[in-house]
Amino acid sequence: MHNDMTPSHRLKELGIQLPTAWAPDSRSGPLPRLLGANVEVYAEFVRVVGRRATISGHLPVDDDGAVCGPFGRVGVDVTVEQARSSARRAMLGILASLARELGTIDRVSAWVRLFGLVNGGPDFRDYPTVINGASRLVYDVFGGEAGKHSRIAIGVGGLPFDAPVEIEAEVELNE
Amino acid sequence: MHNDMTPSHRLKELGIQLPTAWAPDSRSGPLPRLLGANVEVYAEFVRVVGRRATISGHLPVDDDGAVCGPFGRVGVDVTVEQARSSARRAMLGILASLARELGTIDRVSAWVRLFGLVNGGPDFRDYPTVINGASRLVYDVFGGEAGKHSRIAIGVGGLPFDAPVEIEAEVELNE
Amino acid sequence: MHNDMTPSHRLKELGIQLPTAWAPDSRSGPLPRLLGANVEVYAEFVRVVGRRATISGHLPVDDDGAVCGPFGRVGVDVTVEQARSSARRAMLGILASLARELGTIDRVSAWVRLFGLVNGGPDFRDYPTVINGASRLVYDVFGGEAGKHSRIAIGVGGLPFDAPVEIEAEVELNE
Repeated sequence: MHNDMTPSHRLKELGIQLPTAWAPDSRSGPLPRLLGANVEVYAEFVRVVGRRATISGHLPVDDDGAVCGPFGRVGVDVTVEQARSSARRAMLGILASLARELGTIDRVSAWVRLFGLVNGGPDFRDYPTVINGASRLVYDVFGGEAGKHSRIAIGVGGLPFDAPVEIEAEVELNE
Repeated sequence: MHNDMTPSHRLKELGIQLPTAWAPDSRSGPLPRLLGANVEVYAEFVRVVGRRATISGHLPVDDDGAVCGPFGRVGVDVTVEQARSSARRAMLGILASLARELGTIDRVSAWVRLFGLVNGGPDFRDYPTVINGASRLVYDVFGGEAGKHSRIAIGVGGLPFDAPVEIEAEVELNE
Repeated sequence: MHNDMTPSHRLKELGIQLPTAWAPDSRSGPLPRLLGANVEVYAEFVRVVGRRATISGHLPVDDDGAVCGPFGRVGVDVTVEQARSSARRAMLGILASLARELGTIDRVSAWVRLFGLVNGGPDFRDYPTVINGASRLVYDVFGGEAGKHSRIAIGVGGLPFDAPVEIEAEVELNE
């Protein structure tokens, strides 16, 4: 991997295809399909204000951009390795939303912060290992400098669709 | 609703009166009254640094700015519709705090991020519908462009005063 | 305490010695020792982007910078006063990480936001009193103007190592 590669080149080099990104207000996307026709979606997936982009909480998605399993609590229904893979799939969804909003992920000049939420069983505490699935992908695609980020990984009592993990993020954009 | 209306005009148009906003260090406000005379309050309700304003977690408040019910867990003691209305009341409290700190909510040029916390019962997962009560008010008052925001809505094991919902936010200010 | 004192002077005046700060990728620091040799650490403790520094979640640490007790849930295994002291120790760890990353804490021009997580027992709701241990230290060291911050304090179902409290933060830096 060359340091002068762009993030979109690195994606290709790594053989990663981004999932389908759908608009938050889409009436035909996977979320309305799951939630029913009357779903109201008010939040943006990516909010750009100046050179900052804040990214809404993303659940793990399959290649079609639909929320995907395994579902359940980590340490009970879902293994740590599965949850780590789900965290990677949530980050793939974030990259897809960024590409949709910005045209290309190459407009991201620096990662700032990840907020990782783990739907952990009563005795599960190894939240960092789960969220490493997302952090690792960021470093692989954006490199050791632009990919740097602060992070907080916590356990929550539940997540929408009983997903094992959810990721929120913030990045800085090129001028 | 005209696009060239200011947010404070829209509030008026919608017939919305903001609740009383009180200073965080007030010794006579509703929080000290609830918590006892020895309460120490260190955090600001609104912290302005440059053009950014970060807003502390706000609970639902009544017209006097006092934390208000219904209290309890969503899906157990409080219905989804009630919790959605509580989320709206938490956002009214945020708007009041912004007006107090900035002089007028018209200094807000863009919403950035909402963080919604839901005191949900063990099987409750529909956090987005609850927090929509806050997001919807933002769009109604600030319009479809300035009101845009990213969002994360999660379930927590408990909230102060057993409130059903709490909202934290960030906005950008005019120069 | 004089208003024209620098934060590092105030630390000295208060007789506070910062704990040892270790690099996140250190193979010999206390986290790898606790987690085992194969630990992967991807996140930065402090991420600087422009004039913003976002700070990863920090647990309470002893003078050697190792995660320290008391461990357990507040209101069950750990008293409110102990947890408040733990919140202060988490903030000491944050100040040590800032000093390590920036050379000196005097580069912090303004505090922006604290996010406090409390590992509370089923009936514990007084998260603000616990997190006051961290907020108070910020005000004592940075003063009543630069130390101002917005805050959200929540209860979570668990924290790494069963720590009673974890703190995430954001600050602004001098140009």
